[in-house]
Amino acid sequence: MATLIAFDDVSPAADAELLQKACHGWGTDEKTVISILGHRNAIQRKLIREAYQELYHEDLVKRLEHELSGDFERAVYRWNLDPADRDAVLANVALRKENRDHRVIIELSCTLSPEELFSVKRAYQCRYKRSLEEDIASHTSSDLRKLLVGLVSIHRYQGDEVNLKLADSESSILRNAIEEKAFNHEEILRIITTRSKPQLMATLNRYKDEHGCTITKHLKDDSADEYTTTLRTTIRCMSDPIKYFENVIRNAIKNGGTNEDALTRVIVMHAEKDLKDIMEQYYKRNSVPLNQAVAKETSGHYKRFLLTLLGKDS
Amino acid sequence: MATLIAFDDVSPAADAELLQKACHGWGTDEKTVISILGHRNAIQRKLIREAYQELYHEDLVKRLEHELSGDFERAVYRWNLDPADRDAVLANVALRKENRDHRVIIELSCTLSPEELFSVKRAYQCRYKRSLEEDIASHTSSDLRKLLVGLVSIHRYQGDEVNLKLADSESSILRNAIEEKAFNHEEILRIITTRSKPQLMATLNRYKDEHGCTITKHLKDDSADEYTTTLRTTIRCMSDPIKYFENVIRNAIKNGGTNEDALTRVIVMHAEKDLKDIMEQYYKRNSVPLNQAVAKETSGHYKRFLLTLLGKDS
Repeated sequence: MATLIAFDDVSPAADAELLQKACHGWGTDEKTVISILGHRNAIQRKLIREAYQELYHEDLVKRLEHELSGDFERAVYRWNLDPADRDAVLANVALRKENRDHRVIIELSCTLSPEELFSVKRAYQCRYKRSLEEDIASHTSSDLRKLLVGLVSIHRYQGDEVNLKLADSESSILRNAIEEKAFNHEEILRIITTRSKPQLMATLNRYKDEHGCTITKHLKDDSADEYTTTLRTTIRCMSDPIKYFENVIRNAIKNGGTNEDALTRVIVMHAEKDLKDIMEQYYKRNSVPLNQAVAKETSGHYKRFLLTLLGKDS
Repeated sequence: MATLIAFDDVSPAADAELLQKACHGWGTDEKTVISILGHRNAIQRKLIREAYQELYHEDLVKRLEHELSGDFERAVYRWNLDPADRDAVLANVALRKENRDHRVIIELSCTLSPEELFSVKRAYQCRYKRSLEEDIASHTSSDLRKLLVGLVSIHRYQGDEVNLKLADSESSILRNAIEEKAFNHEEILRIITTRSKPQLMATLNRYKDEHGCTITKHLKDDSADEYTTTLRTTIRCMSDPIKYFENVIRNAIKNGGTNEDALTRVIVMHAEKDLKDIMEQYYKRNSVPLNQAVAKETSGHYKRFLLTLLGKDS
């Protein structure tokens, strides 16, 4: 369930006018920006951008980028883009980071539908004049490349059918590879990147039943390299996305330094989808409501904006 | 350019009625079947199937499958399906063949647009309850798997931009791998499967300019294994699809045994697209018009149907 509280009965032209006033002259009226954009869904935001362009011959996204600053600006920027375009931007930013983090690629691959992922790839090409796949491939190598390119490119079967015999045999294949510490075995890559999610879950459950331990635990190794870490993250994100995102948020706001990029990413990407479920999971795990934790670790307009997207701006 | 001569001003209901009469009672009136279906485009054929279903509560594709036989039946069956569905069937038939032939997978990957390929994958899942990617992956292994899964799954950039510096550096990467006879080098796989077609063509042209020889010649090896053969076929199909398909047809009808499967495939898949270009290339290469060569090597209703699709039924 979503956390975004989008108001009905709003006029894109009136919203555009208020936003223009909020940006006009000295200083910016951030409260108005938050009270409008923080209560509009993706379609409404698109209509506001179009109305703004028509009325003022100016790109609202760019105008706000210019008016705002810091984490607040980055959050509003991401929120303002079309979802597919925003995901393309997030993927590109992640690929260009010096401190490589493949979570965005994993999250997009494991949680979007094939149609949504296809739109992200189209948006990526439109923006960067290259394909997402070729950029991932040229930023990585070896097993990590195989895993990430496979994840992002393969169109998984979307049906619910599960073949239990196949789950059984593929669980054994995984076990044999893991016993040999061949975490990069081509059969592991094949199973993780090509099987449908229900089929893969059946295989992983079979594995757990048979060996009394999850596969991610068995994939833990002292020499945790980038590939194995990415593989484990993939399996966790695919197996239970809500738990996975709770974990990302928990790490992002834990005491001693907030990771604003990760916090913004999860909130902006999920406010219109399943952020309520992530919030519930957060409360279950930490006994503190997520909005309280976010309020404690952030400040100013950025804090107000995130709380609005969390449906807790009152 | 297409060869199909589709008639305007036709009524799906009237066509359905004529087809029903052609199938009614003893024997089948194949001439009517050919004269109708051989002159209708994909949309018209779809409307005929729908009208037939509505009027006779029966699936026209299945009815004709039952009424006709041999190569003629297989050609009409393929022609009658929606293009994406037909391509999915062809891919599945190719994967299940004992005598493995990866041409269909290569052809679909190298000549369809990302949108068309996406539709084929959707049709495949709908029909077989598995993804095309997982079927390819589970029917192949090692380098061949990497190549074919990569080809079919990656969404190539569709723009025309070419980076000549990149072409230069990737041509060197290819050359180094080939000099070491590492035809399965991960960089060869990356370049061939992920780069946009114009970019790849620039790289291959650079290779040719620099080394006085096409890369496919350098990939020729006495120990021509399945992977290397498939890689060379891929490069040929991507570099010049018209020449490639002329070659497929030429081999399919050369003296001493016709390969009806390949002949039907190329004609059915291209009659509405670029079969005229393939015919011209055939004439240039063989000094015999393709329709004459087809007429010589085939017979009966099958021959009449193919000639109709070639636009030469008079």
